[in-house]
Amino acid sequence: MQLEIICTGDEVLTGKTINTNFSYMSQKLSDVGLSVRWETTVGDDRESLLQAFQLASQRADAVIVNGGLGPTIDDLSQEVAAQAAGVELVLNDEWLVRMEDFFRRRSRTMPPNNKKQAMLPVTAEVIDNPIGTACGFALDIGKARFFFTPGVPRELRRMLEEQIIPRLLAKSGLQAIIHLKRFHSYGLGESHVDTLLTGVEALVPDGSVKLGFRAHYPQLETKLTARGADMDDIRRKLEVVELEVRKRLGNFILGEDDQTLEGVVLAELAGRQATLSIVEMFTGGQISARVAHLPGAERIFRRGIVARDLAEVCAAVNLGSAAPEGELTQTAEAVARAALRLTSSTHALAVLIDLDQGADRIEFGGTICLAVATAGKVESRRSRILGGREWVRLGAVELGLDCLRRYLQGLPVYERTDFEKA
Amino acid sequence: MQLEIICTGDEVLTGKTINTNFSYMSQKLSDVGLSVRWETTVGDDRESLLQAFQLASQRADAVIVNGGLGPTIDDLSQEVAAQAAGVELVLNDEWLVRMEDFFRRRSRTMPPNNKKQAMLPVTAEVIDNPIGTACGFALDIGKARFFFTPGVPRELRRMLEEQIIPRLLAKSGLQAIIHLKRFHSYGLGESHVDTLLTGVEALVPDGSVKLGFRAHYPQLETKLTARGADMDDIRRKLEVVELEVRKRLGNFILGEDDQTLEGVVLAELAGRQATLSIVEMFTGGQISARVAHLPGAERIFRRGIVARDLAEVCAAVNLGSAAPEGELTQTAEAVARAALRLTSSTHALAVLIDLDQGADRIEFGGTICLAVATAGKVESRRSRILGGREWVRLGAVELGLDCLRRYLQGLPVYERTDFEKA
Repeated sequence: MQLEIICTGDEVLTGKTINTNFSYMSQKLSDVGLSVRWETTVGDDRESLLQAFQLASQRADAVIVNGGLGPTIDDLSQEVAAQAAGVELVLNDEWLVRMEDFFRRRSRTMPPNNKKQAMLPVTAEVIDNPIGTACGFALDIGKARFFFTPGVPRELRRMLEEQIIPRLLAKSGLQAIIHLKRFHSYGLGESHVDTLLTGVEALVPDGSVKLGFRAHYPQLETKLTARGADMDDIRRKLEVVELEVRKRLGNFILGEDDQTLEGVVLAELAGRQATLSIVEMFTGGQISARVAHLPGAERIFRRGIVARDLAEVCAAVNLGSAAPEGELTQTAEAVARAALRLTSSTHALAVLIDLDQGADRIEFGGTICLAVATAGKVESRRSRILGGREWVRLGAVELGLDCLRRYLQGLPVYERTDFEKA
Repeated sequence: MQLEIICTGDEVLTGKTINTNFSYMSQKLSDVGLSVRWETTVGDDRESLLQAFQLASQRADAVIVNGGLGPTIDDLSQEVAAQAAGVELVLNDEWLVRMEDFFRRRSRTMPPNNKKQAMLPVTAEVIDNPIGTACGFALDIGKARFFFTPGVPRELRRMLEEQIIPRLLAKSGLQAIIHLKRFHSYGLGESHVDTLLTGVEALVPDGSVKLGFRAHYPQLETKLTARGADMDDIRRKLEVVELEVRKRLGNFILGEDDQTLEGVVLAELAGRQATLSIVEMFTGGQISARVAHLPGAERIFRRGIVARDLAEVCAAVNLGSAAPEGELTQTAEAVARAALRLTSSTHALAVLIDLDQGADRIEFGGTICLAVATAGKVESRRSRILGGREWVRLGAVELGLDCLRRYLQGLPVYERTDFEKA
């Protein structure tokens, strides 16, 4: 079944409102195996609306239209729907009563312009909106079934889940289910992972598992989209590919599906009733900020210490106020150990950075020296990242958290990433 | 000029990624007087892309295509662009050299599949991307000029502002110059500011100054779009309106144009050769993270201290390890004073939060008590914010920084905001 979505409204078209209704709908639909093929956004403009309805009716079997069911003159969906279907707009007495009742229950009188919301195309099937005055409806335009939904997010959500998805599933007949499996990694670039995973799709010969990526530096998401008759079929198909992806990407996989790096770190710490302190410099508090606010972190995150100057970092953990001589990696180890003593936490992470001098530029870099300390043990790692201030900062935050994850999971803290200079 | 945008990529079409690139582009374009008429989202699918390009080429004069310029097999934009324009795809030697150079400067070898990014339609005009390997380009498809842009937001932003908008303005032949004046405020909601500014547009009777807003909680941007024959004409028209906006929004204006709250705070501190320490709780390091990384902050930002537990906060600033009795506002004052002593900085900001118990929900709130201390003086403020964990956290970060701004600018630290419960 070809499925499209049309989003309407000047607010969305001008970018004033970020179109979260669309991403919500598309995700919800794909969760039940219905994939959206095409999305169109047009403004509160009669001609564009008509054209969008007509084009979608030629391509799709089903179309969800969002917005334009309100009481004001710029809400045009019912009117243009009737025009596109070539039918009359008539007053729906039942919906009018529902609306008057809606206002009465809130001790208000219905303003006259709300009556417009009960004007529906004569062939329309009413789709209930139990929490608002915008009347949902469905009708055929050309070969496609159109579903009209309100722009108010909570009204849309309820209508989509309770009313529209069941109708779409019925209309689609027995369709294959689709499932998305995700792996999150840090340290390997998209093209590198693409090369590493050459051939994994072919492990399922019928082509029902597709490989894709979403790069959001410093992390990369590797996606397997699987089609099957049911979830058992999908699990069977995915199993062999998942194993292979885990094998090839190895320690670089920091989490799967809804897991986050900071969530994995927190769970590892929670599992051993540990407490954590973090010392940072140029990352300016961002490493702490990823962990400290999470639900449950109040029992685990003990102290965050930030300073831009190395002597100040040392002073802050009672290491004396003079910047120490020698290797920054050794200093990071000393700082992590000192933080452990100062805060009485079981784990300490220190991420120190020796930043390049001068103005920001693409070759601007930093040398990151980090250490993770526990009672009897300290591990450290040195890394040089180039790519501008922001790039170095983002990279250092991720590297710090990922090395902590590796430490907690018993993996090597040092493993070369694609983002660093040798 | 009819302008359209086509967003490509399975991650956007499936709703996994919220389409913020579109809202960013549409707003940026309307800021310079170019309005988007139609938006289409299609996946990484050859047939849909071709159809989307063809339809847009029939309707529009100019089309911006976002995404699909990456190195992997699911990136199809160049290939389908060539097909739609009926021209060959050829290797652009100059861009290949640029890419190899890009990798070399990062001490990396270009993976072979990146070569794909230098394959361009033979009629394409290269549009520079100084910060990435995805090559922007423009070419004619049918009657429309198409501009192809990368999906990576920072690359898109730079390309749109520096390369594409000037070309679109030239193409549109807009005689008048358009200038955007912006005010950033914290503490007043959009409808409140809208009411406060009733009638300011009318101060320029010819209608050449338009008022608009962009709300991105916790800040609000108030925009004046002015049209004129030249910049002198615009400045003359704007002057009277700007004065009125400043008068009506008063102390709530935290900055104008490219100013940021953290930048204003840092400049105030730099101007008096001051140093700053920040103590925070549930904000988890996010207040420090806004200031500490900025260029120049290495001389000003002295220390950041984060703890989730009040006793731990007090211990961290040598106030004794037991949580003090009494008012949290008084504790905030004591903590700010203690931080001043501990770090020998000239200014200290303490933002303490008493967070509600239980699961996250829309009524979930927190009581924020903050204090700003200098050698002889301390000012404090209490505020209750509701709206869920994330909302409280964002609000507390902004409130903390804004109260520090007010303190530094000699304005009252307490002024009731629209976001707090009485």
